[in-house]
Parts: sequence; structure tokens; C-alpha cells
Amino acid sequence: MRDSYREQLDDILGDLVQMSQAVSAAVRGATTALLEADIHAAEQVISGDDAIDATQADIESRAFSLLARQAPVAGELRTLVATLRMVTELERMGDLAAHVAKIARLRYPEPAVPDAMRANFVRMGDVAEKMVVSAGQTLSERNLQTAQELHDRDQEMDELRRSQFRALLGDDWTFGVEAAVDVALLGRYYERIADHAASVARRVVYVVTGEFPDDEVWPQP
Amino acid sequence: MRDSYREQLDDILGDLVQMSQAVSAAVRGATTALLEADIHAAEQVISGDDAIDATQADIESRAFSLLARQAPVAGELRTLVATLRMVTELERMGDLAAHVAKIARLRYPEPAVPDAMRANFVRMGDVAEKMVVSAGQTLSERNLQTAQELHDRDQEMDELRRSQFRALLGDDWTFGVEAAVDVALLGRYYERIADHAASVARRVVYVVTGEFPDDEVWPQP
Repeated sequence: MRDSYREQLDDILGDLVQMSQAVSAAVRGATTALLEADIHAAEQVISGDDAIDATQADIESRAFSLLARQAPVAGELRTLVATLRMVTELERMGDLAAHVAKIARLRYPEPAVPDAMRANFVRMGDVAEKMVVSAGQTLSERNLQTAQELHDRDQEMDELRRSQFRALLGDDWTFGVEAAVDVALLGRYYERIADHAASVARRVVYVVTGEFPDDEVWPQP
Repeated sequence: MRDSYREQLDDILGDLVQMSQAVSAAVRGATTALLEADIHAAEQVISGDDAIDATQADIESRAFSLLARQAPVAGELRTLVATLRMVTELERMGDLAAHVAKIARLRYPEPAVPDAMRANFVRMGDVAEKMVVSAGQTLSERNLQTAQELHDRDQEMDELRRSQFRALLGDDWTFGVEAAVDVALLGRYYERIADHAASVARRVVYVVTGEFPDDEVWPQP
């Protein structure tokens, strides 16, 4: 019975890692939709969000059921409680990717992002996608080094967002109000994806060490 | 020992209700800061967010410790797991109120919201604040009726946001890019506060009934 319980716990963690891969694919697809005005990529991300939501519900109910039936203690209890949180964070990242894709679809066949902001969003999309992948690796390998890298990448995302604001509010913004609103919201969505990825990493640190990283060194997003 | 455990659980729920009151005060303060360009209100919300974060950490560690020591089952397990989620939702609402207050502070002594959008934000602030209060009541009274009202208010919030977009993207938007970016982000923050409040209500329904409300009737935010 103990073995089967461990197997169930391992299955849950394996599915959480797979879910993180589905979410990173959604983030990549959303960035493609945005930068290439690719309507098919947009539709795929938007319709694919249901599957991510279903995975969340499934993992959540299995984790809850293990909690209820096995009354785990110590490290395993920490793992299950962290799983409940991480699955929510991953589901939100999927929502945010769908938000990005919806803006791309709304502006299609025009690109939602002006050419002048393209490089910024290429970088944002890349950082966000890598962060989701790293969050998944942190999870599967319980690697605290990767968790620290995630923290550094999150700061790069913040800097990308600040440079967006400088462009948006500078005198040479000539792309009008609609593009400004799109860019501000898109920047917010990518920033939140990064925050959630960093938060997943914090929880892995917690699962492995029993303590959250020092708030001074690694503030809660 | 059982009694003392029930008392600890009641204390946790009582503190969660108090936390919801602190959060609704933060939302009210943020709206005042925004609409009255009130720098003191803004500073109070921003600096007060630390206390909300500390309450989250405290409730979370007590709930976790009860889970670890008491291995609760059925309704009590559901309540504790939902508590861990709700305390995170409340903390996020506090962050979002602080984001609103920071925009008010950034534009001070000018108001961040153009006069033409004032009525819309008065309404948004009011709906958001009432939703946080209702979420707290739903929690303290486990009242499913209030939970349903929250769902209806959330739809009003969505409609307010749509009307913001119509104003922002209409031909008669004459307030420039900076105000447009502020309004778009502020609208997003209020909408998210409402989403989190509705989500807290969903969890109360889950705690009381053991099932989430039908997704058709009441989609997950």
C-alpha cells in the first residue's frame, strides 16, 4: 500500500511536469501568434487552454484525495500542499498565454505589436518561455540551482517591462492609443507569467528544504 | 485535544475573515487615492500591504501545521486546503490594491484618471470593494446566497471593463497615451480583484457543499 501511495505521488509530480511542458508550449505559441500575426497559432493556444484547465482539475483532485486517504506527514505533506499551489500557478500561466493569443487574434491580420517594440517582445516571449521550462525542470529535478536562475530571469523580465514603459511614455511613441493599450496589457501578461514561474520555483525550494527562500534575497513575486 | 483543534481551526477562519476586512479597506483606500489624488491614502495602502503579507504567512503556517499535526478528514480537510488557497487570493487582492495606489502616487498631484472616466472608476471601485466584503461574509457566514451575488457582481465588473475599452479605443479619446495606459492597467487590476473575490466564493461553496459550482453556471475566473 505504501508503495502504491508513493507511485501515486510520483505520478502526480510527473503529470505536473508534463503540464508545465504544455504551458511552455502555450507561451511559445502565444508569442508566435503575437509576433507573426499567426491566427492558427492563436486559435490553438486559445482552444488548448481547456486541456490545461482539465489537467489542473485532475491533478488537484488526485492530490486532494491522497491528502484525505493517506494523511501524509513532513516532506510528503509539503509536496502535496505545494502541488496544489503549483498546479494553480501553472493554470494561470496558461490563462495568461491565452490572453496574449486573444490580443493577437483581435488585431489579426495586423500585428498587435508595432515594429519598434518587436525586439522587446521577442525577448519577453523568450524569457517567459524559458522561465516556464525552467520551472518545470526545477520541479522534475528538484534542482535549486535552476530555481536561482529563475529568480535572475525574473529580474530581466522586470527590466524589459520598464523599458516598455519608457517607450510607451516617450515623446516618440507614434503608434497611437490602441497599440499603447495592447503593449501595456501584453507586457503585464508576460510579466505575470514570469512571476508565476518564479513562484513555482520558490515552492520547489520549499518542498526540498522545508523553508522558503530568504525574502531579502528572493522576494515573493 | 479535539476541542483545541476545533478552536484553532475557528481561529484560522476568524483571522481569514479579518484579513478580508483589511483587504477591503485597502481596496477602498486605493480607490480614494486614485479618484481624489490623495497621496496619504496611497501611501497608507502601499505601506499597509506588508501587514497583509505577514497575515498571509501567519495563517498559511498555522493551517499547514494543523494539517501536519491533526491529519483532518472530510469537511475539515476541505476547509484547511481551501484556506491555503483563499489566503493566497486575499494576499493577491492586497497586491492589486497596492498597484492601484502606486499609479495614483506616480501621477500625484494630478489625478491618474481623466474626468471622463471618473464615473466608470467610481463604479469599478465600488463593485470591487463590495465584492471583497461579500467574499469575507461568504467566508464568515458560509452563505451560498452571498456567493451567488458575487458571481453576478463579477459580471458587472466585466461589463464596466468592456465599456472602458470602448472609451479608450473610441475616436473621442483625447487624453493621450499615458492616461490610456493607466486606465487599461487600472481596469485590469480592478477586474482581477473581482476575479479573486469570486474565486474565494467558489471555494466557500466547495467547503460547504464538497463540490465546486457548475462551471456552466459559474465559470472559474
